[in-house]
Amino acid sequence: MATQQPEFEHPKKAFGWAARDTSGLLSPFNFSRRETGEKDVAFKVLYCGICHSDLHIVENDFGMSTYPLVPGHEIVGVVTEVGSRVHKFKVGDKVGVGCLIDSCHSCQNCVENLENYCPQLILSQGGAKHKDGTTTYGGYSDSMIADEHFVIGIPDEFPLDAAAPLLCAGITVYSPLKYFGLDKPGLHIGVVGLGGLGHLAVKFAKAFGANVTVISTSPNKQKEALENLGVDSFLISHDQDQLQAAIGTLDGIIDTVSASHSLLPLIGLLKSHGKLIMVGLPDKTLELPLIPLIKGRKIIAGSMIGGIKETQEMMEFAAEHNVKPDIEVIPIDYVNKAMERLHKADVKYRFVIDIGNSLKPSF
Amino acid sequence: MATQQPEFEHPKKAFGWAARDTSGLLSPFNFSRRETGEKDVAFKVLYCGICHSDLHIVENDFGMSTYPLVPGHEIVGVVTEVGSRVHKFKVGDKVGVGCLIDSCHSCQNCVENLENYCPQLILSQGGAKHKDGTTTYGGYSDSMIADEHFVIGIPDEFPLDAAAPLLCAGITVYSPLKYFGLDKPGLHIGVVGLGGLGHLAVKFAKAFGANVTVISTSPNKQKEALENLGVDSFLISHDQDQLQAAIGTLDGIIDTVSASHSLLPLIGLLKSHGKLIMVGLPDKTLELPLIPLIKGRKIIAGSMIGGIKETQEMMEFAAEHNVKPDIEVIPIDYVNKAMERLHKADVKYRFVIDIGNSLKPSF
Repeated sequence: MATQQPEFEHPKKAFGWAARDTSGLLSPFNFSRRETGEKDVAFKVLYCGICHSDLHIVENDFGMSTYPLVPGHEIVGVVTEVGSRVHKFKVGDKVGVGCLIDSCHSCQNCVENLENYCPQLILSQGGAKHKDGTTTYGGYSDSMIADEHFVIGIPDEFPLDAAAPLLCAGITVYSPLKYFGLDKPGLHIGVVGLGGLGHLAVKFAKAFGANVTVISTSPNKQKEALENLGVDSFLISHDQDQLQAAIGTLDGIIDTVSASHSLLPLIGLLKSHGKLIMVGLPDKTLELPLIPLIKGRKIIAGSMIGGIKETQEMMEFAAEHNVKPDIEVIPIDYVNKAMERLHKADVKYRFVIDIGNSLKPSF
Repeated sequence: MATQQPEFEHPKKAFGWAARDTSGLLSPFNFSRRETGEKDVAFKVLYCGICHSDLHIVENDFGMSTYPLVPGHEIVGVVTEVGSRVHKFKVGDKVGVGCLIDSCHSCQNCVENLENYCPQLILSQGGAKHKDGTTTYGGYSDSMIADEHFVIGIPDEFPLDAAAPLLCAGITVYSPLKYFGLDKPGLHIGVVGLGGLGHLAVKFAKAFGANVTVISTSPNKQKEALENLGVDSFLISHDQDQLQAAIGTLDGIIDTVSASHSLLPLIGLLKSHGKLIMVGLPDKTLELPLIPLIKGRKIIAGSMIGGIKETQEMMEFAAEHNVKPDIEVIPIDYVNKAMERLHKADVKYRFVIDIGNSLKPSF
């Protein structure tokens, strides 16, 4: 099959692991990356986080994947080469690339540093196309290249493996906390779902000075949430007595759950004028409980990752306030097993692939 | 039937028109109002607007009505008596009472002048109970009494008949335009549904300096909307080409429609970060189109009338900017016919009952 052949459209050899079809099974893959342009930053990949959406992408659940597909959009490493007009970075710098690899640079969203909402946004993986028509390959690979605008600097003191998940999971929860004014000390913030996104929502909300309530279907996460994550309250989402007792107590909720679920009890947990922010993508249509929205002037909103400027701010905030994801570092050979475990939500709370020490090129 | 008897719990005789059962048919009714307390303002009712929700209330569609039921919550008139500790008003002042007749005065919402979101809010009609346990009777009556806190002053130059609908329809659309930042000149504002609320949303948005688009199921409203209401664009909600051409053009939408309808095309009309504000109460559950919310960081919110302080501000803004509802003034004898026409949305755009000249007491 043509799509199974190595691609050498570009001069620089690259090596990674790719899915070849909707089975999502990953295996070694030779491909290429472009020559370093004058605004480009090339870097050796050292770590790459495994986001839950990687699962959807390798299995083509969104219907937009093309194969071979190199996943990975929580990509960190060390700069190996910079173009002549690069100002932000130099060789040896610690850097990362998240979900965004390019955008139109000229629309209102791009002008306002909200490239994540640019209609011509180019994702760093999954079958998206660069402006030159070539396929984007993600971070389950030995090298990465991007226009410096889309490269995030990682503070020297911050561990690279922990930095990786911040580039997607971190900014996805940090951005709405900031935008919707849920970053003020003393607020009561709810977090629905305690996975990769949820546990970072807890950590950022705590760093902002919030009192944090986790709402979860899993009683077995309660002890750790209270003892290790510093969560203030833990509600089991099917315990009506617990929910009833907490009605009208939260200023805002970050809902990270991608499984279908009822929003009515969550809206009930909000105070008047409270905000329910959806960052997970449920696979089924949800019902809109309109009357409680109207009676309490409440809001349901969506939010998707964050812009580049804000991602940089988030990274610096995380370094300053020691916000680090809880990660399980794995070798690349373990990636298919990790995907299996991710299907069962069997990870606390993010897999990070140790690319630097485990990915061995075949050429 | 006991509930059909006149009520003389209070010393002051009053007269109005009441519904006796869920037929909603209105007929003359003798009842009573309380003595003027030290903080009370009593006034002779001159006009009362007919809100679409009066229909629901007289027919007990919300399941909370008690009979006999005197409707009316857009009540204006002239002060006849004030209590010894009343500071805001004097005999002869033009005043009004809207949806709210009382609240707890101590909760966070009350403290922040958001009595409309007080959990112990008392509505001025419909079977709600005053704190003394007696029934609230609305403005289809010759007299009204309320704590001065819940009485709105009406500027001398403003016509009383036009002021009436502002007390519910007006504040219901004014408040969300202000709270959600949709009151800035140059914004593009959509208004869904061109009825009592919708036509006032158009007028307030125009007064704020917005470019206004009406989205309506009724092509026959287009000419008048463009020529008489000063609407800038008119979209027929079932015309896919029109909707397609307007995608991503609106900063905010005030949705006044209470019939079930799809929110997906409305969310599509919003720019990134746009806000869809629901002020109508659909009778069926609506679907929440989550993906476009997330991809554009858009908001769906509810809003319910407004607080007393803001209602006073709205009234003064309306007087200053000549925001007046288009009304059809009717005598009380026409009220049942008006209700029939309201069922068919056959009014441009608000009935106002001329209480002062047409309601004749029987005792």
